[in-house]
Amino acid sequence: MIDTQPGTGTTAARTEATLRQLMDDQATAMRSRDADYLVSRYAADAVTFDLAPPLQNVGAGVHDTEARRAWFATFDGAIDYEIRDLSVLGGDDFAVCRSVNRLSATPKGMTESFQLWFRATVCWRRSGDGWQIVHEHNSTPFYMDGSLRAAVDLTP
Amino acid sequence: MIDTQPGTGTTAARTEATLRQLMDDQATAMRSRDADYLVSRYAADAVTFDLAPPLQNVGAGVHDTEARRAWFATFDGAIDYEIRDLSVLGGDDFAVCRSVNRLSATPKGMTESFQLWFRATVCWRRSGDGWQIVHEHNSTPFYMDGSLRAAVDLTP
Repeated sequence: MIDTQPGTGTTAARTEATLRQLMDDQATAMRSRDADYLVSRYAADAVTFDLAPPLQNVGAGVHDTEARRAWFATFDGAIDYEIRDLSVLGGDDFAVCRSVNRLSATPKGMTESFQLWFRATVCWRRSGDGWQIVHEHNSTPFYMDGSLRAAVDLTP
Repeated sequence: MIDTQPGTGTTAARTEATLRQLMDDQATAMRSRDADYLVSRYAADAVTFDLAPPLQNVGAGVHDTEARRAWFATFDGAIDYEIRDLSVLGGDDFAVCRSVNRLSATPKGMTESFQLWFRATVCWRRSGDGWQIVHEHNSTPFYMDGSLRAAVDLTP
């Protein structure tokens, strides 16, 4: 049903529904190894802070479909991906999706799968091209106990 | 000079100037160990993803001034804090500050200082109380070379 009563509350609800669907589509694309779709969501000027180095990715580092395909190829069998505790913050044309995500997969050549919970902050901007990701920040914390180990064993 | 010509461009420029000042104030508060100021910037419903575990901080975990004071007390001497490559994204009442930050300090009992570069995404919301932080995400990446070490040795 098309909403013919524009208003702050209604627009916010519509934005939230749209972004929840887009985040759901991200999870689906991760599970189906759809590198093209994932890369297509980034705006030309997007900057990402990812789980692995470098500190930040810009330009070709964000839009490299082959690199993403190569990353998917490091896993055998099914990739599982879950987005939990999703909150949508912000307004009509710019919003942030905050969540805790789980990646489960089996590295090539291994028999055991791993499960990694990490934090995700995804900033979306709406323009003539629809909603695009302008900034994404994925991370785990690290143990400040002298070991400097990444805290890859946490669960929400 | 007070801007008497409201308009989208002008408002955006004013928002950006305000948030750059607020981020500068954050850095100043870090250098001066001002736990009260830092904690006062968080909205009641803020959720933070920080450098150290847990995965996420909510409620008292965000607003704990004593914990922040205790953290400052783990360092001897001067704390240095730099915010680099700051970009302000978003709109009038909700905006994101993206940057790469440097913390330099000397842990108590050590003679050598460390330097840590990390990624920062800070989401601000404007309400009747002015601009407050509703979400903050600080992190380093980690090495996916089997070591799972936090990448605390990167520089921008």
